[in-house]
Amino acid sequence: MSETTPLAIESLKHAPKTSGVEEMILRRWSPRAFTDRAVSAEDLKKLFEAARWAASSYNEQPWRFLIGRKGDATYNKIFDALVEFNQSWAKSAPVLILSVGEKTFAKNGNPNHHALHDTGAATANLALQATALGLHTHSMAGFDNEKIRKSLAIPADYEIGAVTALGHFGSVDTLPDPMKAMETAPRERKPLKEFVFSEWEQPAQF
Amino acid sequence: MSETTPLAIESLKHAPKTSGVEEMILRRWSPRAFTDRAVSAEDLKKLFEAARWAASSYNEQPWRFLIGRKGDATYNKIFDALVEFNQSWAKSAPVLILSVGEKTFAKNGNPNHHALHDTGAATANLALQATALGLHTHSMAGFDNEKIRKSLAIPADYEIGAVTALGHFGSVDTLPDPMKAMETAPRERKPLKEFVFSEWEQPAQF
Repeated sequence: MSETTPLAIESLKHAPKTSGVEEMILRRWSPRAFTDRAVSAEDLKKLFEAARWAASSYNEQPWRFLIGRKGDATYNKIFDALVEFNQSWAKSAPVLILSVGEKTFAKNGNPNHHALHDTGAATANLALQATALGLHTHSMAGFDNEKIRKSLAIPADYEIGAVTALGHFGSVDTLPDPMKAMETAPRERKPLKEFVFSEWEQPAQF
Repeated sequence: MSETTPLAIESLKHAPKTSGVEEMILRRWSPRAFTDRAVSAEDLKKLFEAARWAASSYNEQPWRFLIGRKGDATYNKIFDALVEFNQSWAKSAPVLILSVGEKTFAKNGNPNHHALHDTGAATANLALQATALGLHTHSMAGFDNEKIRKSLAIPADYEIGAVTALGHFGSVDTLPDPMKAMETAPRERKPLKEFVFSEWEQPAQF
């Protein structure tokens, strides 16, 4: 059992240490097991303060977040829109957040092609701030967009972003069997040469 | 002149200190004045390592980055696609990076609606890591998408993201006049109640 204690898993999920790369970035990962401990109001404020200072095209700040806390109507509406696979683990998360991005610029109504790009940036800030506070996030694309738009009354001018589960990392033993192995598998990423180019598909030389 | 020294401006651009919110997040901002000091290969590697560990839908890692260093062909191609306003300041940046996101999942060819969302997340990681290293980034949407797609041979299956200028913060005096004031203006963001809701447009209570 020792390899599946929360501490052992946290250590396993830590990206390889790279001198000079921020701990907060290397330690962030997306668990599926959460404890039932609530997230404090103070911590929630810090997370959205972090999101707030993200960069955006023309400083439009197109992101909006709808936050559901376990037991409230918004939580239930977000949860009900998740695909079954995500419901099976996300039910342990004390907070579910839906992000959306405004598709046009407030000042002139022109289309903002970076609405989701910038919403993703704000969500990355939020995730890193969560890590710094000892919290974890797990963002999902697996939910019914139209159902969530309807139940949460999202206007047509907003593009649906992601649902993010938020809470404290819990015990793998609470997860359905197929997910236990996923929760303890090493993290994987493409090597730099596959996504940093000098010319298209020519690895940049460092 | 004392209010326009790089140090004074950095201090002005620091988001209001909020206890428990990460310095790296509050200190990140997007300047227009860069020195001509090059960015070391070691630092570039750290920035992309930070981008690498961002979260993405199904861990697809849809982001690709094309990096131009002043004097090389890729730099010139990115620069040539910028709108004139951005050219007038970005010419001082030693590095220009184009991000793109793959629109379909590699494993099954299904559309990835979060390609730019996740590319934005990776770019946020990169920007924060830059801040941690004493560097600065300034991402832009103001460029000719079709021109850059053609000159850099970006395949149709990739969506164009942003161009990010990268370097060391320089002297405001090098900027064209209209931009000097922008560079020394206080930073502005919406208050939380305008983008964190419990129900649509109902501010969340913390």
